[in-house]
Amino acid sequence: MTTVLSSRAAIHTESVEYKQGDATLEGVLVYDDAIQGKRPGILVVHQWFGLTDYEKRRATMLAQLGYVAFCADIYGKDSRPKDVKEAGTLSGKYKSDRALLRARVNAALDVLKKNELVDTSRVAAIGYCFGGTTVIELARSGADLNGVVSFHGGLDSPTPADGKNIKCKVLALAGADDPFQKPDDLTAFESEMRDNKVDWQIVFYGGAVHAFTQPDPGFSNPGAKYNEKADKRSWQAMKDFFAEIFN
Amino acid sequence: MTTVLSSRAAIHTESVEYKQGDATLEGVLVYDDAIQGKRPGILVVHQWFGLTDYEKRRATMLAQLGYVAFCADIYGKDSRPKDVKEAGTLSGKYKSDRALLRARVNAALDVLKKNELVDTSRVAAIGYCFGGTTVIELARSGADLNGVVSFHGGLDSPTPADGKNIKCKVLALAGADDPFQKPDDLTAFESEMRDNKVDWQIVFYGGAVHAFTQPDPGFSNPGAKYNEKADKRSWQAMKDFFAEIFN
Repeated sequence: MTTVLSSRAAIHTESVEYKQGDATLEGVLVYDDAIQGKRPGILVVHQWFGLTDYEKRRATMLAQLGYVAFCADIYGKDSRPKDVKEAGTLSGKYKSDRALLRARVNAALDVLKKNELVDTSRVAAIGYCFGGTTVIELARSGADLNGVVSFHGGLDSPTPADGKNIKCKVLALAGADDPFQKPDDLTAFESEMRDNKVDWQIVFYGGAVHAFTQPDPGFSNPGAKYNEKADKRSWQAMKDFFAEIFN
Repeated sequence: MTTVLSSRAAIHTESVEYKQGDATLEGVLVYDDAIQGKRPGILVVHQWFGLTDYEKRRATMLAQLGYVAFCADIYGKDSRPKDVKEAGTLSGKYKSDRALLRARVNAALDVLKKNELVDTSRVAAIGYCFGGTTVIELARSGADLNGVVSFHGGLDSPTPADGKNIKCKVLALAGADDPFQKPDDLTAFESEMRDNKVDWQIVFYGGAVHAFTQPDPGFSNPGAKYNEKADKRSWQAMKDFFAEIFN
């Protein structure tokens, strides 16, 4: 089932229901319908609050760059956290069950890749915070795509040996002062990438804390704050990465 | 004294003698003489072998991007290392005498800024290995420029409190597997940047070791090797940085 949400200007936005196991999920597909033919597809994975207007805005920005963007729904159609407590409970559930998290994100990737506008040889995934963790997990699942980009995502893994499954390029964009990024997790991530000869990169933005791309992170904490410079720089880094992997 | 070395196509290359104290230095100025008017100026600081064809090639690439590039000569007109031993002695001398290193690199910056083609409100410095260390030291000297870019440079400082003098933006581009980059130096550098509220960024390229931009580092060591991907990515990161700081 699809519901056209808006189709102003050339940017087409539609809601897409899909399944993973018995769960019903509801993502959002965004593309520029003034563009003809197949083009690269980008999966956008949400932060701990689930699929919000924030992800739709990023998907619109991607559509304006000429990509087909699909916002994944990891939590489920009827699971939209109302507050920090619910967001913590839901994100914690999936972070603790990486098998389920991988199944959910792969289901979303399938929707994207089955879209007739998508050139399936040119696909990437980006994610924010919880979604940044999720896209790295997608790579660890052995998914077939060109690259993943984590924006201020947790890089920890309960099963670092799964780094051996990674087939795509990995770009991590991190706040140099992010208090939610534990040094031990960073070290373990680097070892995982190194030990498995992954093509990986990490950028640290000085002065940036957690959630540096989000003007409204949805909670008040000095460790999570928008940083315009880091936002712009990280978006540029993502664009350069796409230019390389979709070359 | 200037000597025109070549002026094929539109790229003009000339040798420029200049002084620092009693020392005579010989740099190389490169620009596109098909371009009219003032433009940003980029200082290029050499690796431990001194000013070689490598730096001239980078300066030519910068000239082709529309910049005026000036290759600094830190060691002096008659000091061109013949081998690794001499390179080590000379680079060691300047690394041990940061005051002299700062004087030398500032003398080169002055030559660049006095060039009539240079828009002195838009100036940056880049450096490779030893030169990467040197451009950070230039920033620590309080020099007035928009930004510095270190390519696989040592980031250590004997006087980290001098971070307070840094007025420009700092971008460090590093091999994630560079064995010459000591973890303690990295930690100290990050603290120096953080404590002094510098606008800084660091990028780590997975799989890249020392000298990753240099097809011929001049010595055989598994810890220093060209890496085409990291070379291209770091050059792109530099271009993005310039686009931002010269905006």
